[in-house]
Amino acid sequence: MTSEWALVIKTSLILRKIMNDPISKITDIMEADLITIGDEILIGQIVDTNSAWMAQHLNDEGINIRQITSISDQPDHIFQTLLESEKKASIVLVTGGLGPTRDDRTKTAICDFFETQLVVNNSVLDHVIELLAPRGIVINSLNRDQALVPASATVLHNKLGTAPGLWFERGETIFVFMPGVPFEMKYLMEHEVIPRIKNLFNTNTILHRTILTQGLAESALAEKIAYWEDSLPESIKLAYLPSPQSVRLRLSARGDNENYLKKLLEDKIKELTQIIPDYIFGYEEETMAGNIGRILQERELTLAVAESCTGGNIAHTITLNPGSSAYFKGGIIAYSNEIKINVLGIDQNLIADKGAVSKEVVEAMAISARKMLNSNYAIATSGIAGPTGGTTDKPVGTVWIALAGPDSVISKRFNFANHRERNIIRSSQTALNMLRLELLKNNN
Amino acid sequence: MTSEWALVIKTSLILRKIMNDPISKITDIMEADLITIGDEILIGQIVDTNSAWMAQHLNDEGINIRQITSISDQPDHIFQTLLESEKKASIVLVTGGLGPTRDDRTKTAICDFFETQLVVNNSVLDHVIELLAPRGIVINSLNRDQALVPASATVLHNKLGTAPGLWFERGETIFVFMPGVPFEMKYLMEHEVIPRIKNLFNTNTILHRTILTQGLAESALAEKIAYWEDSLPESIKLAYLPSPQSVRLRLSARGDNENYLKKLLEDKIKELTQIIPDYIFGYEEETMAGNIGRILQERELTLAVAESCTGGNIAHTITLNPGSSAYFKGGIIAYSNEIKINVLGIDQNLIADKGAVSKEVVEAMAISARKMLNSNYAIATSGIAGPTGGTTDKPVGTVWIALAGPDSVISKRFNFANHRERNIIRSSQTALNMLRLELLKNNN
Repeated sequence: MTSEWALVIKTSLILRKIMNDPISKITDIMEADLITIGDEILIGQIVDTNSAWMAQHLNDEGINIRQITSISDQPDHIFQTLLESEKKASIVLVTGGLGPTRDDRTKTAICDFFETQLVVNNSVLDHVIELLAPRGIVINSLNRDQALVPASATVLHNKLGTAPGLWFERGETIFVFMPGVPFEMKYLMEHEVIPRIKNLFNTNTILHRTILTQGLAESALAEKIAYWEDSLPESIKLAYLPSPQSVRLRLSARGDNENYLKKLLEDKIKELTQIIPDYIFGYEEETMAGNIGRILQERELTLAVAESCTGGNIAHTITLNPGSSAYFKGGIIAYSNEIKINVLGIDQNLIADKGAVSKEVVEAMAISARKMLNSNYAIATSGIAGPTGGTTDKPVGTVWIALAGPDSVISKRFNFANHRERNIIRSSQTALNMLRLELLKNNN
Repeated sequence: MTSEWALVIKTSLILRKIMNDPISKITDIMEADLITIGDEILIGQIVDTNSAWMAQHLNDEGINIRQITSISDQPDHIFQTLLESEKKASIVLVTGGLGPTRDDRTKTAICDFFETQLVVNNSVLDHVIELLAPRGIVINSLNRDQALVPASATVLHNKLGTAPGLWFERGETIFVFMPGVPFEMKYLMEHEVIPRIKNLFNTNTILHRTILTQGLAESALAEKIAYWEDSLPESIKLAYLPSPQSVRLRLSARGDNENYLKKLLEDKIKELTQIIPDYIFGYEEETMAGNIGRILQERELTLAVAESCTGGNIAHTITLNPGSSAYFKGGIIAYSNEIKINVLGIDQNLIADKGAVSKEVVEAMAISARKMLNSNYAIATSGIAGPTGGTTDKPVGTVWIALAGPDSVISKRFNFANHRERNIIRSSQTALNMLRLELLKNNN
């Protein structure tokens, strides 16, 4: 593409924008399509993590993703998919299908689509030779073919690999082709693609905030915050993102005044905090265990566990965090009653009398763990994870959780679902949330 | 959909197959499109792991994936995408967009597409009530709306969640809509969707065998079995599926003679077993912990753990298996040296002298746990999970693992990678494999 032609396109894009052309695809909100080429994703051999990364980074620049499509490397399918995206998106970003062993078909399809042909690009050839020489690799014909690029493409220098990025502009749409290797794609996106896109489109500001909640199912949460949700201005969108660990609430604000949007988000989050104070345990990428770890470390407090039904998962969740040895002493996994009696010293008669899944036993476990492990706090769990072992009184999913602290012991009965792994995860998160709420209370 | 209509479709599909209609989409290799609905993937908040799982499982049944598409929940976009897929695929599987807080738009789009309307389905309503009652959740209008289903859909019972699966047949195409929550999708795929698809399409015989290995990295494994891999006939394809837990080897045989394929696979697996006997720990969906649990239970043996660097993950891995209380007694998480000394009774001088990450300490931990918890076997770990805490002698990733049994204690030093979570997972799997090999040895 000549620079004159690029200028024409750019001017046309800007003019259409200024004139607020209603039939143009160029709106305040730019839309991009992501296309991945190659069989690995279609046979389920690899998970497409590239698209999520690209989507996040484009969103940060105010560019919406309209559609993500994964296709095979059949030329017809590539051609058709590019054609569809050209009709609907302003930016089409394609990854995969470029690499020493298989880029021929993709490059041929690209040439057909743009009505151009392959030519040797000397700067790419020099780069390929330069890249392979230190590894003692003598350039072969496969490597040499990497220097073949479509004549009408702008070549984007790929410092980290042999396949360059290819940039095309046609009509009102920009097309970029990148290799599918994640670090090469990321390098090209950060150093070539995003700067060029920002230069072409004066994109809108978009801000995201994620609020992490625990203790309410998605539907109950939605009901509790319905009034607040209805009060959100049009510039803020809300998404519910449920998982067994938590329900995350994601607010996305879009507009042209960044400071105004920041203030708007802050105000709305403040309102939300007043509606569900006990259910919010953190923000953005935080985890429950990470959050608790930070509080414990700041106050120089220590934690121990006595786990029955959670079978070590609370300890595992805590020790996934780097530096957890500063506040986590360890614990007793009292999976069998024998261990509850012989190691934790729980009264045999108490277990016989009340059952291992009872307020009395779980409280005794927490108290004993706190003493044995000489910690400030101790969490204990006892329940029926399933799939068997339930009774009418105590169905599968019944879990008692206790927390022993410096001043008192608290405990609570929960009823989780009929699914072993989820019961274990929910019990663990709920136990940690109980500790978090207690730590917050003791701070005031 | 009436059963008459289903029969017409089925007959048409079978007839077209028998007549080998060249213009029909129905070929020996069925093609499926996967569509995900919802903003989470488009904004890059979550990675689409559902599609990879579905692609793998459909491949197992000889069904190729033509395209994977992620779109927003805008009704127009849903409608257009369904229309495109209807033209090109025989099976269209849609996930996401169904859930208590946001299924309205998707369901409306579905109704428009199939020219039908929403009606209350009483069995779904009963199921929603039944599912929420034990958790003490009073049904609200959002939950009640989950029981609204398109009148012409066949409802697929979703045991694990409130949103049912929806099955439509139109022309030569099957459409299935499922919730996007991974475990609900998987349940529906395994129990409803795949059995129905198998019933409708008489696909080419395709057999899969998965061999589970532990202890060799992917490249080292590939080198060890290169000769065997080269000897595989064309009808068998091999895939390496590496994860932090293990490298799975997946053999897929395709043909029309099932017995011949079975024999072929058996022979090849027998050969492989002779090449890497110590590295194969199981087959198919087995897990290392499940495999060990079976052996322990059969021989009426018990297990305990003393975990330092793995922080409860070995116990968690074991107790994820239903029925593990039959053989797993529990353990001590001796995360701090204080617990190693005061609870496990390790000699303070030994730790000072040899370091907590040493052969002597980890063996003492295993012996003590075996005694304290009165078990036949005890596993102990002590290492540097990272990211900090390494020294020149013992860099991050150094892990000592010991196994105490009725007759002896064995231990071994390992060097894992520079990544905390992977270190924890690898240490746990390696420790379990040590136990497995010991159990096998003691059997002979």
